[in-house]
Amino acid sequence: MIPGPTPVPESVLVELARHPIGHRSKEFSDIFMSCIEDLKWLGKTKNSDIFIYTASGTGAMEAAISNVISPGDKVLSLVIGVFGKRFGQIAQAFGAEVEMFTAEMGKVIDPKLLEERLSLDKNKEIKVVTVTHSETSTGAANDLEKISKIIKNHGALLIVDAVTSLGCMNVDIDGWGLDIVISGSQKGFMIPPGLSFIYVSKKAWEYNKKSKCPKFYWDFGKHKKSLDEQTTPFTPNVSFVCVLKKAFEMMKKEGLENIILRHERLTKNLRSGLKRLDLKLLTEDQNASHAITAIWPPDGVLVPDIRSAYKKDWDITVANGQDTLKDKIFRIGHLGFVSDRDIEMTLAVTGKVMLSLRGSLKG
Amino acid sequence: MIPGPTPVPESVLVELARHPIGHRSKEFSDIFMSCIEDLKWLGKTKNSDIFIYTASGTGAMEAAISNVISPGDKVLSLVIGVFGKRFGQIAQAFGAEVEMFTAEMGKVIDPKLLEERLSLDKNKEIKVVTVTHSETSTGAANDLEKISKIIKNHGALLIVDAVTSLGCMNVDIDGWGLDIVISGSQKGFMIPPGLSFIYVSKKAWEYNKKSKCPKFYWDFGKHKKSLDEQTTPFTPNVSFVCVLKKAFEMMKKEGLENIILRHERLTKNLRSGLKRLDLKLLTEDQNASHAITAIWPPDGVLVPDIRSAYKKDWDITVANGQDTLKDKIFRIGHLGFVSDRDIEMTLAVTGKVMLSLRGSLKG
Repeated sequence: MIPGPTPVPESVLVELARHPIGHRSKEFSDIFMSCIEDLKWLGKTKNSDIFIYTASGTGAMEAAISNVISPGDKVLSLVIGVFGKRFGQIAQAFGAEVEMFTAEMGKVIDPKLLEERLSLDKNKEIKVVTVTHSETSTGAANDLEKISKIIKNHGALLIVDAVTSLGCMNVDIDGWGLDIVISGSQKGFMIPPGLSFIYVSKKAWEYNKKSKCPKFYWDFGKHKKSLDEQTTPFTPNVSFVCVLKKAFEMMKKEGLENIILRHERLTKNLRSGLKRLDLKLLTEDQNASHAITAIWPPDGVLVPDIRSAYKKDWDITVANGQDTLKDKIFRIGHLGFVSDRDIEMTLAVTGKVMLSLRGSLKG
Repeated sequence: MIPGPTPVPESVLVELARHPIGHRSKEFSDIFMSCIEDLKWLGKTKNSDIFIYTASGTGAMEAAISNVISPGDKVLSLVIGVFGKRFGQIAQAFGAEVEMFTAEMGKVIDPKLLEERLSLDKNKEIKVVTVTHSETSTGAANDLEKISKIIKNHGALLIVDAVTSLGCMNVDIDGWGLDIVISGSQKGFMIPPGLSFIYVSKKAWEYNKKSKCPKFYWDFGKHKKSLDEQTTPFTPNVSFVCVLKKAFEMMKKEGLENIILRHERLTKNLRSGLKRLDLKLLTEDQNASHAITAIWPPDGVLVPDIRSAYKKDWDITVANGQDTLKDKIFRIGHLGFVSDRDIEMTLAVTGKVMLSLRGSLKG
């Protein structure tokens, strides 16, 4: 029950064991283009170009930055945890002047404060805003629709990290007017880590034309030229593209709205169950990501002891906190191939784990 | 029989179907570090740091360039085909002043001409030299040992593309003093495309300290810090690292010298068999890569017809030429999980294919 790599369904694993096909074959092109169409369906977009990178999510983050900024550009990075900060760090590495607009760990970006900050930018110096939809390190989720509206009013380009939200929460790319959206295979897509995805809007292409950052592997232009020929510019992870198609078949069978409702229900049930066990959660209900939940340990109980009790007694892995939250919280993932049964099992086990650890405190 | 993705053994495919493990687990760390040790064994090096990227070979090429050059640096790219040229193009994209030192397609770099060129560089303006060991687009292989000696005498940093030579030809990193070597999973490693590897010498680290190119995903520093903690900085392709370990078990069982001898024998037998069929080869025997062989079509026979006859009648895929050699040559791969039996089969089928196509010419 970690926040990714998430569980992989058997049908996907079996597909993975098939011999890879040639990446310049018609057979592969057909599979590749069907994945592109399915990615459009998942992100509710008709207007975006979509590229599949053989890389993990951080690679797609670097692709987003290096394709639209130029050294010296002002970037506002909305930070609610480790991954929001990483976006800012990547922009810094590529020469941007980055302002980290930071919320307390566990909280989300306050739309009013963001509006105030942007209203000070009279000369429209801020060219790009980066935002994390669902922050894996805290289990908090920003109100992406509201944030997007505010950024549109200002006029900056909005880059969205949807690594742990696409395929589990509503991400309405065309409806909300998101300019660039990135995601990764090992999360809502139910396949192992190794691929990442990027959605590129018309507005992003305008930025791309002016961008002076060096790029080659991530270059939108190269990927677009190949996409128009129904292929990729460099050898892709053929096996994973083929299993992605399989995973999409499962997702389409369940239906996008049902997937989103399931994750909403799992989150609600997990959170209320944890509260019944007298556990305190890092985020408030209205800010909860539907991908992951972060939990404070009970008074006097140590996070490493909790994690090892889950592992030793129940063979369940739960994640530690990251960065400043390391050993302060633990995290349970409920993203992708996760069912109501898994949540009930996790709650039952959590009850036993807490009982034994609290008991040994008294003893 | 294409030059990659190469055939994948069943034991590796079965391993691929296993559920991915968490990338921050002790279990994964152990597998990861065992792959690092095996990569040292394969490249005959004790002195290099090795990083595993979740990316295809071109990603590792970009990593090599972006970690050691600064904009304006003079780079000499030794070009004997498409992939040699790509190295130069990546260096250009990152702001280097690139000189392409080009041999005719099918030929290799002439050590004497290279020595002459470098002797003109009195002020040591050339900072970096890139070279392809085995050029996939032509089936020619440079004399890497000799080239490395010449570059060492000059003093520039040598970056080697060993994507289709490591695991099939002798690559003696410490013995020959190669500064940076890159390779990819879908070639000699017998696993699907999705991982690439980079060997970084002490001299490369000195260049890295002075490099002013932006980098994040490829950043040697981040990967080294994580390697020292037996992990990767970003979520790796966990499944492929696990199957890499399996592939190394097979390779170590065969033995490195035996692997190299097998590829040498396969190459020799394929080439002499093709000549017996009156086919002309693009490269001369002494310049032959042991990974791939490029063949001219018989007079009057078209490459697309040859490829479709292999495919339609025998379900064998052979590769087209690339770039200026497209539809001029066809290529047969014999890299990785390929046996003497496969070569005999390929020769027998090639005989039938040519017989039928030449026959239809006369008819």
